[in-house]
Amino acid sequence: MTGLLTDLYQLTMAAGYYESGKHEERSVFELFFRRLPHNRNYVIAAGLAQAVEYLVQLRFTRAETDYLRTLPQFHNVSAGFFDELLRFRFSGDVYAIAEGTPVFPGEPLLTIRAPLLQAQLVETWLLAMIGFQSLVATKAARICEVAGARGVVEFGTRRAHSPEAGLFAARAAYIGGCAGTSNTEAGFRFGIPVFGTAAHSWVQSFPTEREAYEALQRMLGPETVYLIDTYDTIAGANLAASLGRPLWGVRLDSGNLVELAHQVRRILDDAGLRDAKIMATSDLNEYKILEYLAAGAPIDAFGVGTDLATSADAPAIGAVYKLVELGDGDGKRYTTKLSEGKHTMPGMKQVFRYRDHDQIACSSECGDPASSVALVRPVINRGELVEPLPDVDAARKNAQECLRRLPLACRSLFETEEKYPVEYSAELRRVSDRVLAGLNQEVAT
Amino acid sequence: MTGLLTDLYQLTMAAGYYESGKHEERSVFELFFRRLPHNRNYVIAAGLAQAVEYLVQLRFTRAETDYLRTLPQFHNVSAGFFDELLRFRFSGDVYAIAEGTPVFPGEPLLTIRAPLLQAQLVETWLLAMIGFQSLVATKAARICEVAGARGVVEFGTRRAHSPEAGLFAARAAYIGGCAGTSNTEAGFRFGIPVFGTAAHSWVQSFPTEREAYEALQRMLGPETVYLIDTYDTIAGANLAASLGRPLWGVRLDSGNLVELAHQVRRILDDAGLRDAKIMATSDLNEYKILEYLAAGAPIDAFGVGTDLATSADAPAIGAVYKLVELGDGDGKRYTTKLSEGKHTMPGMKQVFRYRDHDQIACSSECGDPASSVALVRPVINRGELVEPLPDVDAARKNAQECLRRLPLACRSLFETEEKYPVEYSAELRRVSDRVLAGLNQEVAT
Repeated sequence: MTGLLTDLYQLTMAAGYYESGKHEERSVFELFFRRLPHNRNYVIAAGLAQAVEYLVQLRFTRAETDYLRTLPQFHNVSAGFFDELLRFRFSGDVYAIAEGTPVFPGEPLLTIRAPLLQAQLVETWLLAMIGFQSLVATKAARICEVAGARGVVEFGTRRAHSPEAGLFAARAAYIGGCAGTSNTEAGFRFGIPVFGTAAHSWVQSFPTEREAYEALQRMLGPETVYLIDTYDTIAGANLAASLGRPLWGVRLDSGNLVELAHQVRRILDDAGLRDAKIMATSDLNEYKILEYLAAGAPIDAFGVGTDLATSADAPAIGAVYKLVELGDGDGKRYTTKLSEGKHTMPGMKQVFRYRDHDQIACSSECGDPASSVALVRPVINRGELVEPLPDVDAARKNAQECLRRLPLACRSLFETEEKYPVEYSAELRRVSDRVLAGLNQEVAT
Repeated sequence: MTGLLTDLYQLTMAAGYYESGKHEERSVFELFFRRLPHNRNYVIAAGLAQAVEYLVQLRFTRAETDYLRTLPQFHNVSAGFFDELLRFRFSGDVYAIAEGTPVFPGEPLLTIRAPLLQAQLVETWLLAMIGFQSLVATKAARICEVAGARGVVEFGTRRAHSPEAGLFAARAAYIGGCAGTSNTEAGFRFGIPVFGTAAHSWVQSFPTEREAYEALQRMLGPETVYLIDTYDTIAGANLAASLGRPLWGVRLDSGNLVELAHQVRRILDDAGLRDAKIMATSDLNEYKILEYLAAGAPIDAFGVGTDLATSADAPAIGAVYKLVELGDGDGKRYTTKLSEGKHTMPGMKQVFRYRDHDQIACSSECGDPASSVALVRPVINRGELVEPLPDVDAARKNAQECLRRLPLACRSLFETEEKYPVEYSAELRRVSDRVLAGLNQEVAT
């Protein structure tokens, strides 16, 4: 993993820390979001596995440091800094909330305790990976909530923000509850179930629709899904019905899905294919699925692409990565910023999850182990993985179990008046007040 | 580049083409979008360089084909298909519209003429890369249009849909008109100017704001940009002013940017720093910049992140990749689909750009060379690059020149009633009518 895939200011700051002799100072940064995205009442944490891989593998090459030396920002920087980059190995500690866990504003999804130079450099990459996967996992959870027992498959790679984004969208969507993905690399690399049969071009490529269907059935047998809308959906359904078993079912990809699903269901049933399923695709999202199911559309499975892989109604999460502590022992200092609307709570934190609320506390506090769980757990210790991370299936199961325990209102598709209760501990509030008082005094003088 | 980073159905169709003996049939696919995204009156084509790299480098490994063999969809597929994948080398022709060119619905940004198996497999990757970069280049063009002579720098990697998306967002934003990016890898890999100085954590990491500013100025000299809102913007501005030259200027990142810019301008001017500049950041986009500048805010440069790197108000473009021709010589067949709302025009196309309108024609037609330019140009011939592609600077220049020639209304931030005129040639309409008549007859029988 290249160290240059970061904002330039991380590198100029790293150089500045080096020049100021501060680069090895122990620092703590926390990654969290300030506000819930549009219409969300929770966010599903995801992307930790890639974050850990990145931290462990991060390196700089000579060609990269040579490039930096050409930039005017580095003309006054001493050679030792570039040697420091060439020797870069992440040697810090990482704490995190497990993938699949619903989280709320202010809760640290990831905590990095490391020499200042290291912890600073990795901000950009971590925010992009964890922010994006968390957005998509959340979107998937919403879609699956509405779809209920009907399977939802992630089909969005073609509309993702670059092919790599499609790969990570597939991973996050699975964690959020999807049954699988069309992204084959996600199946190969992460062991996620993959789905897919044929597109319109398949039908078009044969002289007749019948020949296209027959060739598909010969190859796929019971996995066969006919895409029936290339020319005329009802004619396509009749053709599919006439071919009989083996088949999984048919796919609708255009037109009024509610009406068509009813008509197609009748055609299949009349042909004795009661076990043949109907899958719907075509610019779906949780809102449309809610509407179609409320209208009684006999749809058995959904393929969701664009809106899922881009989290289209909330395409960004305001995730931030903030310095909350600096120094060690007696030299330890809590840090914050006062910027309007962007104030942050100082100090390294823990999140205690109780049955009906969360408490954000100082990392040194002990919650009540009988009634609460500490969500922020060690992941990397002095550069070494503490234990293998849970795989995607475990993360997916974690999401399902956690979501079941959330209040129903919290799982609404729409913003609820009553927020999930998250409180600060008395100790954390004391620390924050103390830091603020000190800063305000300084600003005033 | 791995061949598995695609939808599974591309691979099942590829297998089906192989089994049906159609995999070497000559096919033509076109990549285009059906409708303009929200509030857009044009789209800037981008991503071609990565598309070409992908096509030339695409390979399959034994581990990948072994994985495919484990999937139920491939149980009936003969071994020869997997050998075909292991031998995969793109051997087709590619035509494209140059990066930076404004394009309109129905115009083929990319045309692939290749054996059916090859052309089918690459759909997903090409759509994701070209769709995304075109979205961001378009967003950048809108932002730069509003900012006028003031520089706009792309700062969005942290909010992009994965770090790699951030890299390509930086590239596309530069093509669309940005002065540069904070993404250092984009500077290293594509030669894009990079910018960035320091974040709040820099200020927080020093015992006092003054020490932070002094250390920055020592390192950066005339490149120094003070981020002045960590604790109190006005106090920060006074501190910056007191340190005097060398500096580039200051950055505002929170609060009411119009009021603060006026106050800070006065503080800098009063200190004799009339040449010190004010940069603004903080969840900006073209709409906010329009408002701030209309309110007379003395801002000299903008850093735009989240909304640019995610094209937040239009996070997806309905780009599609459609089979339009199949076969060769006498066996050549034009193809289309009739799906409701998703009809496509058959046959390989050319786009002639006249002074005040575009004409989409059959690829065999000749436009009027005196009054029009043929936009769709050969890029790859039989798997080989025809000539080196223009670099990002040439693409950026192309965008600037083309945008200048667009009608003012077309460059509005908002959807205009009057669309840019794009017509079909008489010949293309004849071809389409003929194909539709044939299909309708077939569906009717």
